[in-house]
Amino acid sequence: MSEDERTEHLKRLAALMRYYILAATTQAGSGHPTSSLSAVELMGGLLFGGIFRYDADRPDHPNNDRLIFSKGHASPLFYALWAAAGKLSEDELMTYRHFGSRLEGHPTVAFPYAEAATGSLGMGLSIGLGTALNAKYLDKLPYRTYVLLGDSEMAEGAQWEAVQLAAHYKLDNLIGVIDVNRLGQRGETMYGTDLAAYEKRISAFGWATFTVDGHSFSEILDAYKKARDVSGRPSMIIAKTVKGKGFSEIEDKDGWHGKALGKEAFERALKELGEIDTSVRGGIEKPQDLRPPKNPAGKAAALDYKMKDAVATRTAYGNALTRIYPAFPEIVSLDGEVSNSTCAGEFKDAHPDRFFEMYIAEQNMAGAALGLARRHKIPFVSTFSAFMSRAYDQIRMSRYSDANIKFVGSHAGVSIGEDGPSQMGLEDLAFFRTVLDAAVLYPSDAVSCERLVEAAAQHDGIVYIRTTRGKTPVIYDTAESFSIGGSKVVRASDQDIATVVAAGITLHEALKAYDALKKEGISIRVIDLYTVKPVDEQTLREAAADTGAIITVEDHYAEGGIGEAVRSAFETCPVPIHSLAVRKKPKSGKPEELLDFEEISQQAIVATVKRLGMT
Amino acid sequence: MSEDERTEHLKRLAALMRYYILAATTQAGSGHPTSSLSAVELMGGLLFGGIFRYDADRPDHPNNDRLIFSKGHASPLFYALWAAAGKLSEDELMTYRHFGSRLEGHPTVAFPYAEAATGSLGMGLSIGLGTALNAKYLDKLPYRTYVLLGDSEMAEGAQWEAVQLAAHYKLDNLIGVIDVNRLGQRGETMYGTDLAAYEKRISAFGWATFTVDGHSFSEILDAYKKARDVSGRPSMIIAKTVKGKGFSEIEDKDGWHGKALGKEAFERALKELGEIDTSVRGGIEKPQDLRPPKNPAGKAAALDYKMKDAVATRTAYGNALTRIYPAFPEIVSLDGEVSNSTCAGEFKDAHPDRFFEMYIAEQNMAGAALGLARRHKIPFVSTFSAFMSRAYDQIRMSRYSDANIKFVGSHAGVSIGEDGPSQMGLEDLAFFRTVLDAAVLYPSDAVSCERLVEAAAQHDGIVYIRTTRGKTPVIYDTAESFSIGGSKVVRASDQDIATVVAAGITLHEALKAYDALKKEGISIRVIDLYTVKPVDEQTLREAAADTGAIITVEDHYAEGGIGEAVRSAFETCPVPIHSLAVRKKPKSGKPEELLDFEEISQQAIVATVKRLGMT
Repeated sequence: MSEDERTEHLKRLAALMRYYILAATTQAGSGHPTSSLSAVELMGGLLFGGIFRYDADRPDHPNNDRLIFSKGHASPLFYALWAAAGKLSEDELMTYRHFGSRLEGHPTVAFPYAEAATGSLGMGLSIGLGTALNAKYLDKLPYRTYVLLGDSEMAEGAQWEAVQLAAHYKLDNLIGVIDVNRLGQRGETMYGTDLAAYEKRISAFGWATFTVDGHSFSEILDAYKKARDVSGRPSMIIAKTVKGKGFSEIEDKDGWHGKALGKEAFERALKELGEIDTSVRGGIEKPQDLRPPKNPAGKAAALDYKMKDAVATRTAYGNALTRIYPAFPEIVSLDGEVSNSTCAGEFKDAHPDRFFEMYIAEQNMAGAALGLARRHKIPFVSTFSAFMSRAYDQIRMSRYSDANIKFVGSHAGVSIGEDGPSQMGLEDLAFFRTVLDAAVLYPSDAVSCERLVEAAAQHDGIVYIRTTRGKTPVIYDTAESFSIGGSKVVRASDQDIATVVAAGITLHEALKAYDALKKEGISIRVIDLYTVKPVDEQTLREAAADTGAIITVEDHYAEGGIGEAVRSAFETCPVPIHSLAVRKKPKSGKPEELLDFEEISQQAIVATVKRLGMT
Repeated sequence: MSEDERTEHLKRLAALMRYYILAATTQAGSGHPTSSLSAVELMGGLLFGGIFRYDADRPDHPNNDRLIFSKGHASPLFYALWAAAGKLSEDELMTYRHFGSRLEGHPTVAFPYAEAATGSLGMGLSIGLGTALNAKYLDKLPYRTYVLLGDSEMAEGAQWEAVQLAAHYKLDNLIGVIDVNRLGQRGETMYGTDLAAYEKRISAFGWATFTVDGHSFSEILDAYKKARDVSGRPSMIIAKTVKGKGFSEIEDKDGWHGKALGKEAFERALKELGEIDTSVRGGIEKPQDLRPPKNPAGKAAALDYKMKDAVATRTAYGNALTRIYPAFPEIVSLDGEVSNSTCAGEFKDAHPDRFFEMYIAEQNMAGAALGLARRHKIPFVSTFSAFMSRAYDQIRMSRYSDANIKFVGSHAGVSIGEDGPSQMGLEDLAFFRTVLDAAVLYPSDAVSCERLVEAAAQHDGIVYIRTTRGKTPVIYDTAESFSIGGSKVVRASDQDIATVVAAGITLHEALKAYDALKKEGISIRVIDLYTVKPVDEQTLREAAADTGAIITVEDHYAEGGIGEAVRSAFETCPVPIHSLAVRKKPKSGKPEELLDFEEISQQAIVATVKRLGMT
């Protein structure tokens, strides 16, 4: 094909895609046609202009280039691309946004060509950073990752985290494309059509940048080719485009974000588009049939702890990750510049090639983890439990990508002590419990922590593991088994007048309370609720029936944590449930002082049991 | 005082502050002396070099310059500054990090000179942006805001959101100071000592930049003076410093982050510091005694809705904010580039001078709101409820600043329909419930929404209001009253066999279920739980006792929302509680299809009531 023929072919494909975009959104009565129309040439040129390499019959081919629509609302274009590639029928395209369709309003992994679910803005570059890290440092494959970005979403800080980290990791296999169509949802963006503003900012971070007319195939293809030749740094193509391009009534007009054309306007648009060749199809270059190097699985070493040894669960986390890596060679560790505190540092020292320092940029860390997970790695993502909150939107979204990611939050609760409330994770159980099907684990000693890290690695899905700063005694034999969904009855007798349900640091308070009460002839049951979600309903119900009262104790705010997880285990609960939790504004102090102040220490448990005994 | 004398004086103050920093952390046995020592000259020069204008006897003087330690872990320096200013005794300084002391591990507003609690990194610049916005656009006062930043925390995306917005708003009264001490917590930062890397990136965003030797008073004072003269854009002073400066054993050494010296090392450090003049005190220039213009309060107009009118609560939010502004002239509205969806746009149109477009940068928006709140404004912060999650860490932290901020999240739940899960807030109730003392409101119609916006404006503290995308009928008379902590029994009889507790969109499903069941001769009680926190325990207990069963229904994941709030209202609950909630992965579809799919529609309620009736 000559250059002219190729351009002609691409133009016919562009017209077809514009038709698809308008037809799909008009039938749906909603969606984002204008945000799609602006990027038709940018994406059409990429896929059908000989740049992109992808085996469309094998979306999971390890050496496929990756395409992520960070501006997920341009989903009509995304689906139009695959329709133009012959991988989606016009009939199915017309199910766009219908209940049960694979073609959701914003892409999710229900559609096999979506690398990840997007739609919350400012996430795609981080996800792409993850797939690019994978290509360059783990799978060592030549595939490239392309990310379509909106101009409006460049305001998101997460973008600049990704911009920094991509340059830091010299990701010359990552190519961003900013669709500068000037208009956000409610009006003009901060920089309007000032391409130089984007170029100046992004190149200042060490990226190669290319500005183009985003509707000129020749400029676009030229930029992609140049970007392919850049070495040692990522590239950003900054394209001036027209929102709504192709239908003059809506081109570059405010008030047309996220609006479908009505039937009549659609007809007028069709006329403007001219003849549509619905038989034209775009071909995509195939990738080289390369595979990542094999990393055969071996065996994890045995555990080595003695009962009563004082070991922080965060230390056990570092030990565990290092120990189990041979059995799970897909593990990678990402940490937010606190690996000496989360103890991910131990893994880093043992397996530096499987560790990525993600600096203090938690959003990008979570996004990159998703990219790695989508390339079949098992990312363990660690920072303080408090700072996990920085990435809650990314974590929330990763669920819609069926992500297999393990989040490990250290320094949970007021028991961290002197550093004060800013460093205390007191909301993390509540948040992670809201993540659909996520497992929420909270080990209390080194043995259970090691076993739960292992269980997390084995589990396909999102897992949160909460670890504790201070040392706690080993209370389990290394032969003890732990599983997601389980709990342990650690103290029980026929005379128990109440059941104390605790986990992590408060389990040790419960055990101290048990000893203190025992001396006074009072027996309590103690349950280690090491799985906060899904909760072990059976054991809780039995304990309620046996002992007549439940006391929950947690180093977490009263809402959404252990207390409410336990309550939700009962449809009808004929026994009283008392919930001890953090209910006063925390402050600096010694761990013991704070546990007492918040009334989640052994004293509070003893007092609550005694009060129950009197009623 | 001659220049030489001033420098000599500043050096004596610096030595004194170094002594304070080391003494306070050594007695505490923890803290961050090295991160404090690097910025002694930067901050000492600012406060005591004639730059900073602050009436130290009146920390709340409206024209005081503002100083925010974004690197909150440098709290020993922060306290040392005020000790050197004569505002804190050495005795009190030695209570640093003790339980009950105002001098917490990271600054909180327990200490009156702290503008805001910091310690989660990358937040101070946004807070400062808020106080600077206030000075320039609202109070119209000449005070300046200074923010001390760590080099490590510049990796946080939130910083770059603030960098963008500060330039956009031409905040020439905002001066950042980066303490480039090369070392983060676990090792070197991304850019090490490369001041030019910071300068290039920050100036690309339109800031004035000044690089200095961060231990040279003359360079520092010169930069502050130049920054004061910059017009139309913010300034960043980028200072090369030495972590641990002043004690050679720890200077520029890895492994000394967040570690106090032991007693012996402290003694050696004292020797190196040389003679300390504990009687020297630093003087701070007083500000002009200026006040903000008065904005006298008027009266809010009356409500104007008719029963059964179909009005989305998000529309009512926009109406309410506009309507009540005369009664609450401290209101400001901040929106994340979705004001046409959240309906903050109505307020913007009516009061453009009280509206700040914050673009798609939610973290900075929440941080700026805190700055505004600390300057006695009442910020209403709006975006989609889903995207509030982007700012959870900022919201969590703002509680430790006793913030008076109203967050308004629109497009809650699966009932938004076709846009799909990325746009659905399904975790927001759980998160906001964890915020200590926060009020969580979820109106179901326009009247209750308007009244609750009013109640929120009146309330001092964090309030979250959840609004709905679709239109719902007005069900309350405009004379009806609503208060934080209240609920409404909207249907009740002596024959009720169950109580349905709902709020927002599901209240309307409950009312439809009520009608459907009525036709079959079955009576249910319906409660509008418009306050999800603090929950109206009394009304719930009465309903349980009267009707024998409770069914909660919510357009939110099952964890941490209405179901669990209701459960937590009961210590002993002898009646069954069934919780209908979002329990399957949401998708695109029509709102009604999704409510049915998730089993939170009238059909599900009817079925649950009937199942109860049969048992």
